[in-house]
Amino acid sequence: MKAYDNNIIELAEKISSGDRRALAQAITLIESTRDGDGSVAANLLAALHDNPSAKIRIGISGAPGVGKSTFIENFGKYLIGEGYRIAVLAVDPSSSVSGGSILGDKTRMPGLSRDSNAFIRPTPSGGTLGGVARRTRESMILVEGAGYDVVIVETVGVGQSEFAVSDLVDVFILLISPGGGDELQGIKRGIMELADLVIINKADGELLAAAQKAAIEHKSALNLLRPRSSDWRPEVATMSAINQQGLVEIWAAISRFRDTMQDSGYFFRRRQEQARQWLWKEVEQKLLRAFRNCDAVAALIQTLEESVASGATTPNVAADRLLRAFFERD
Amino acid sequence: MKAYDNNIIELAEKISSGDRRALAQAITLIESTRDGDGSVAANLLAALHDNPSAKIRIGISGAPGVGKSTFIENFGKYLIGEGYRIAVLAVDPSSSVSGGSILGDKTRMPGLSRDSNAFIRPTPSGGTLGGVARRTRESMILVEGAGYDVVIVETVGVGQSEFAVSDLVDVFILLISPGGGDELQGIKRGIMELADLVIINKADGELLAAAQKAAIEHKSALNLLRPRSSDWRPEVATMSAINQQGLVEIWAAISRFRDTMQDSGYFFRRRQEQARQWLWKEVEQKLLRAFRNCDAVAALIQTLEESVASGATTPNVAADRLLRAFFERD
Repeated sequence: MKAYDNNIIELAEKISSGDRRALAQAITLIESTRDGDGSVAANLLAALHDNPSAKIRIGISGAPGVGKSTFIENFGKYLIGEGYRIAVLAVDPSSSVSGGSILGDKTRMPGLSRDSNAFIRPTPSGGTLGGVARRTRESMILVEGAGYDVVIVETVGVGQSEFAVSDLVDVFILLISPGGGDELQGIKRGIMELADLVIINKADGELLAAAQKAAIEHKSALNLLRPRSSDWRPEVATMSAINQQGLVEIWAAISRFRDTMQDSGYFFRRRQEQARQWLWKEVEQKLLRAFRNCDAVAALIQTLEESVASGATTPNVAADRLLRAFFERD
Repeated sequence: MKAYDNNIIELAEKISSGDRRALAQAITLIESTRDGDGSVAANLLAALHDNPSAKIRIGISGAPGVGKSTFIENFGKYLIGEGYRIAVLAVDPSSSVSGGSILGDKTRMPGLSRDSNAFIRPTPSGGTLGGVARRTRESMILVEGAGYDVVIVETVGVGQSEFAVSDLVDVFILLISPGGGDELQGIKRGIMELADLVIINKADGELLAAAQKAAIEHKSALNLLRPRSSDWRPEVATMSAINQQGLVEIWAAISRFRDTMQDSGYFFRRRQEQARQWLWKEVEQKLLRAFRNCDAVAALIQTLEESVASGATTPNVAADRLLRAFFERD
């Protein structure tokens, strides 16, 4: 990667001109970047940062088996047919052991992965959720710089990753499948309330009635929750991703959301607020990492944590002891 | 307050023996403590910390007008009748301007505020939510040290304070009133999912049918949310606080929750986890405060935040610049 050190502008230009190889290399560069070694990636991002062409950033979440891949495959193909270029990124810290798989993406989205107007990037491997979210955020800037105008950020409904994705995107979609344990256990605490749009998939064949019932139940449940913005009340739609039914209506709902939020000013205020939040998350993460990695602190952490858990030391006494060790370390 | 400097043990003994004046003075001491001036308060807390007599810590939330005061007044009197001693603390950062009001508490809980087996402390004044939560947490240790065995932490459903309270208590109760705008707008994002017990108040007179309908709706909504623990599925109850109906059943539900969670080990694991979280929250808060107060950082913050919001600088470039300023400040 060092070859790019003096060639950031050239790489940025290649990405902007739609060079898929350059884009893939740049994302690999970002994923491989460690702290203190990030100047190349940072320069590259800065070079591309002024060029956000994306019309909309869509977050999609849903438990395994709900039909996310089929939805993204068919929804993506529909959008390409409408003239858009689609990028699909994934946030799934649970796959950090396997490191994600391009083969997997080729299998689960065969049409989209062969389409020159789509760019699919598997989950970045390894690291904490914070790290994965950060690399996804940076990859998003890269694919937008490369001219993809709909960015789909996908996640699996099994952790805190929905909250991270919700902070990355303009509109957050929750996919639900009717019946089964999904309604009872598939949805993590708080995720329903992130949704701007809830889609009941598998509204076909034997499950049609169950899907319609689930739609009514979710509408009434959403009525009990306060919406994210007073300008938009979350909508519930049914769909059969496998039969490509409901895709037009879903894009219409997303467009309606975008137009409403742009008119009210919420859309860009939210993007600005997200950027500010990213800044402070970066600061917090790096500050806490420096804190935990400080030898004088590390030597105390375990004993003090145990002492606090057992009740022998109060949390603030323990915190003060750690902070003293940190600031007096030199 | 300096008079206590050499007399922490005496003050702690007075509190333990049930001296209400000493308890009130100690809470004032904690509330008035600023950073770097906290050794007295810290020593006092440490002296009392080994003596947690509280049977249970109950969080109660609900929008204004839902009947929280009437519920706490009558529920508290019922518990005193059952032989318990009750402490009521409040977390309400929105009242930080007015600084809370003892008169207010005397008016809204007249019976409880006169009862020698109850101790009511108004909202600590001023400061951030983090600061208010911290002082409430420390006050909780004081009232437990003073022998109050049911601690009620009350908050208003208008902010992030529910999440802070949920991290302080063993069981979290959400009060709802039937009908009105409450169902549609009174409940903040994510709060429903914190609830171990949802109580529909005002199940009397004209509102009885609406309350029963609301109970059914909330039961079905809660079924869509994943419970906090696999050992406990959140329950929905109706009550008429003003007619003192349903109080026995609510205490029975709380006791059932406590017994179930203690049997499964969740109860004490959660308290230990909360103590560890408090430690790291203290560390984070103090670390970030030191960061923001650092002159070299403060000189850069506004320009960099604006530059990030406008898209001119990437969040990680800006974060690195701030961190360099912090660590190279000497």
